[in-house]
Amino acid sequence: MRTDFVYLNGRIVRAGQAAISPFDIGLLRGYAVFDLLRTIDGRPFLLDEHLRRFRASAKRLALTVPVGDDEIAAAIDELLERNDHHEATVRLVLTGGVSPDGMSHDPDTPTFFILTHELHAPPDAVYERGAKLVTHAHHREVPEAKTTNYITLLGNKARLAEEGALDLLYHDGETVSEAATASFYVVKDATIHVPDADVLWGTVGELVLDWAKERVDVVRGVVTLADVVDADEAFLTSTTRGVVGIVAIDDHTIGDGTVGPITRTLMDGYRELTHRHRRHA
Amino acid sequence: MRTDFVYLNGRIVRAGQAAISPFDIGLLRGYAVFDLLRTIDGRPFLLDEHLRRFRASAKRLALTVPVGDDEIAAAIDELLERNDHHEATVRLVLTGGVSPDGMSHDPDTPTFFILTHELHAPPDAVYERGAKLVTHAHHREVPEAKTTNYITLLGNKARLAEEGALDLLYHDGETVSEAATASFYVVKDATIHVPDADVLWGTVGELVLDWAKERVDVVRGVVTLADVVDADEAFLTSTTRGVVGIVAIDDHTIGDGTVGPITRTLMDGYRELTHRHRRHA
Repeated sequence: MRTDFVYLNGRIVRAGQAAISPFDIGLLRGYAVFDLLRTIDGRPFLLDEHLRRFRASAKRLALTVPVGDDEIAAAIDELLERNDHHEATVRLVLTGGVSPDGMSHDPDTPTFFILTHELHAPPDAVYERGAKLVTHAHHREVPEAKTTNYITLLGNKARLAEEGALDLLYHDGETVSEAATASFYVVKDATIHVPDADVLWGTVGELVLDWAKERVDVVRGVVTLADVVDADEAFLTSTTRGVVGIVAIDDHTIGDGTVGPITRTLMDGYRELTHRHRRHA
Repeated sequence: MRTDFVYLNGRIVRAGQAAISPFDIGLLRGYAVFDLLRTIDGRPFLLDEHLRRFRASAKRLALTVPVGDDEIAAAIDELLERNDHHEATVRLVLTGGVSPDGMSHDPDTPTFFILTHELHAPPDAVYERGAKLVTHAHHREVPEAKTTNYITLLGNKARLAEEGALDLLYHDGETVSEAATASFYVVKDATIHVPDADVLWGTVGELVLDWAKERVDVVRGVVTLADVVDADEAFLTSTTRGVVGIVAIDDHTIGDGTVGPITRTLMDGYRELTHRHRRHA
């Protein structure tokens, strides 16, 4: 494991010495939230936004992040300095803490840890040619919180590999919500349509939509499976992948099967915004 | 914590020395299954049935229990001997193991541990007077496997306490499936109706239904919310609670609001079956 150090409950320790109790309710009952940010030029990108979302997820589960943003930022800086990554993803995890009976937990003693991983961005070809999604009927249990439950995604990894797909697109039989690890959007008649029910707030998505709002119309509301098939373009946004054009969904080709002009504009916008972050290094 | 020893990946260790990695995919992605059995007179009850269900849950997630039933049984016996319980619940937990990247895992290196807890059965009044359930629209993601995700139940604990309810009754708006921690049944015209879609196989439920099958008709199929309201009796079965009459669901009284005769017959049957276990001590 390249990651040598982790932050656990107030201390930076070697990964091999970071011990989570088998009685942790995050492990026994999946009672946990997390967030994931990336570095650009080795420095956290959109840190404030990710911390805000992390605290919102915690609140939704009646969990409290036990330390302030400054301590979290300092811990991240120290981990990034000690661990040897080209670029990293930084994972904040908060659970309900140790549960002697396997069902209840004390809100005053959560488990909070921070891990870093080497960032693995998709190959260039994914950005140039676009990617495929496969649809899957699924409703995340607490859509507005980033909980740790990814059992449906992990159970479909083999199917994604078989189909050469980048991610699952979740829907309820009629309406689409989001991809398993990304926000999802369609473009029709030069307007970006943003599914707004049962989705997690996307940090990169909101950043590029805000950047684009003078250039293109954005409508938030219901996006149906029929809208997806009929779209001119589709794209996803995520922390690790930025903006990726979606050119196929199941057996349907989206638009002409290439990454569309509005998606390319947003990809340019994301590049510009990340360059600004680099310049402020 | 009264539990002093746990079994972890082949060894019995003190709970304080049992270290789960923060990179465990059971913690980071909820990729884990478990099972829970109870002791009667200090000895495991329905061990074979729970081991069978545990292996079935594991298989559903493409996980492999790394040791045989004999080693598991021996580990449970040792834990029960070393830990000081009046009666215990025994929890088997299997995760995908350590995941350096927080997404993938090696199927050959799972994490497998066994914990014991003091058994807390409901007070006698619950058996005498029956209990209340509150309905909740929810579909477990992998209903046929006992996964560790109980976020919906834990998020509704305050509501259960407020309403004086024993458990949630899951439904999809029309059909009921199971309680959050128990199997659920209704009785109409002297026939027990067993919801058979999207439910976990219940060890105690199957035991008492098998015992009852000469005495009462059992029908497996769809049970609707309307059937529940219209039922003569309702009951649940679970490992920790045995058979419990359900006399109220939300604001509806079931039957005459007392524990019904067929439910009492099954409670008697469960008592007889547990007495047999005691006699074979």
